[in-house]
Amino acid sequence: MMPRILGVLGGMGPLATVDFMDKVISATPASRDQDHVPMVAASVPQVPDRTAAIEGDGPSPLPAMLDGIRRLERGGAESIAIACNTAHYWYDEMQAETELPIFHIADMAIQTLDEGVAHVGILATAGTISAGIYADRLTAAGMAAVVPDDADQNALVMGGINAVKAGDVAAGGDLLAKAADALRAKGAERIILGCTEVPPGLAAADEMRDDCVDATDALARACVDWAMVDKADALKTA
Amino acid sequence: MMPRILGVLGGMGPLATVDFMDKVISATPASRDQDHVPMVAASVPQVPDRTAAIEGDGPSPLPAMLDGIRRLERGGAESIAIACNTAHYWYDEMQAETELPIFHIADMAIQTLDEGVAHVGILATAGTISAGIYADRLTAAGMAAVVPDDADQNALVMGGINAVKAGDVAAGGDLLAKAADALRAKGAERIILGCTEVPPGLAAADEMRDDCVDATDALARACVDWAMVDKADALKTA
Repeated sequence: MMPRILGVLGGMGPLATVDFMDKVISATPASRDQDHVPMVAASVPQVPDRTAAIEGDGPSPLPAMLDGIRRLERGGAESIAIACNTAHYWYDEMQAETELPIFHIADMAIQTLDEGVAHVGILATAGTISAGIYADRLTAAGMAAVVPDDADQNALVMGGINAVKAGDVAAGGDLLAKAADALRAKGAERIILGCTEVPPGLAAADEMRDDCVDATDALARACVDWAMVDKADALKTA
Repeated sequence: MMPRILGVLGGMGPLATVDFMDKVISATPASRDQDHVPMVAASVPQVPDRTAAIEGDGPSPLPAMLDGIRRLERGGAESIAIACNTAHYWYDEMQAETELPIFHIADMAIQTLDEGVAHVGILATAGTISAGIYADRLTAAGMAAVVPDDADQNALVMGGINAVKAGDVAAGGDLLAKAADALRAKGAERIILGCTEVPPGLAAADEMRDDCVDATDALARACVDWAMVDKADALKTA
């Protein structure tokens, strides 16, 4: 059978795109090239800054992201995964503009949390935090969101994310690990890594602990499950 | 300025595609997302085996590769890099079917060799070796190609490459490192890693030595140089 073609809206940042594609490959049961999930990717990083736009300090990235979605449609994608948490602020607008189903990374991450977990930390951009992309969904599911205080969010989380984006992956990871420890001290039982730059940073700093929930990985696994459904079956339920 | 959009013909295998994109990112002087090379990628791994086709044991991968090139054209690519050495057996046929310039990975690797190097080992698929993709170009440049004997090519090189493709990256790298040592014993001063699965394998096995010439990296660097040319300048020389 030919698996379904996944479209990857990337470039936000470029390293996160590669990390997501790598996680799709790792999550796929395969013994040869032809068993893997087919992907088309648009990693065009010339997209206005997402956090700045959410905070009212810059132009909307939506037109550039819709341009990326058009590239994926023309390339033959049958669904879309967005390798950037903050971009999900514009999820409804993007979904309204395409016939292709778009996965929501926060839903994919939250559905992996164990029953009984009550306090969930969030390591994410200032834009993702202030937009409530994770917190709103955690609250709806009966859990409490634990977020960094403003000083940590600025110095450790955004400092770490920007270091990863600039290529200083391990140094960024060290900052992010300090932010994770602060969330643990505030009672977080699990920590959602809700920015695609966070997992490669923590991994490079050897700080990817058991309480970390890698949202990129959760999205990748959901995409593999989707791609591997037999097309004939998929048409029956569509 | 907006850099030019690179098309990545991938999926052969999927991990090699990610490794190539990662090397483009690493080779780019960038301090923020927007400084990076825009890429569209077609990583559709349902392509018939390239080595089998070259050896007359299977169908041609050319139609599937041309389908990937069409996806890249429709996605807005302005040139094409192929993240698979063996696929370059069909380079002329592919270039004849697209207006976009296609980089040749072997030319990009060979142009990085230091003056005075006379004996160059090749770690590549049986298809790449038997087709002379590297050897013909090395000979034309006045160098001698050093290739594994048939037993090593089969057990160590193809065994290692297939292990990497199946996800056993470090185990594959151990086999490839043994093959590299055999080439050194035969007098190779440099060893071209002429299959995209070889560099991640050797890196995972901690066997990426100074005499190794990573063809994937050479291709990535050439692509970054191309993408970063100002479009106005590029039009003048086109």
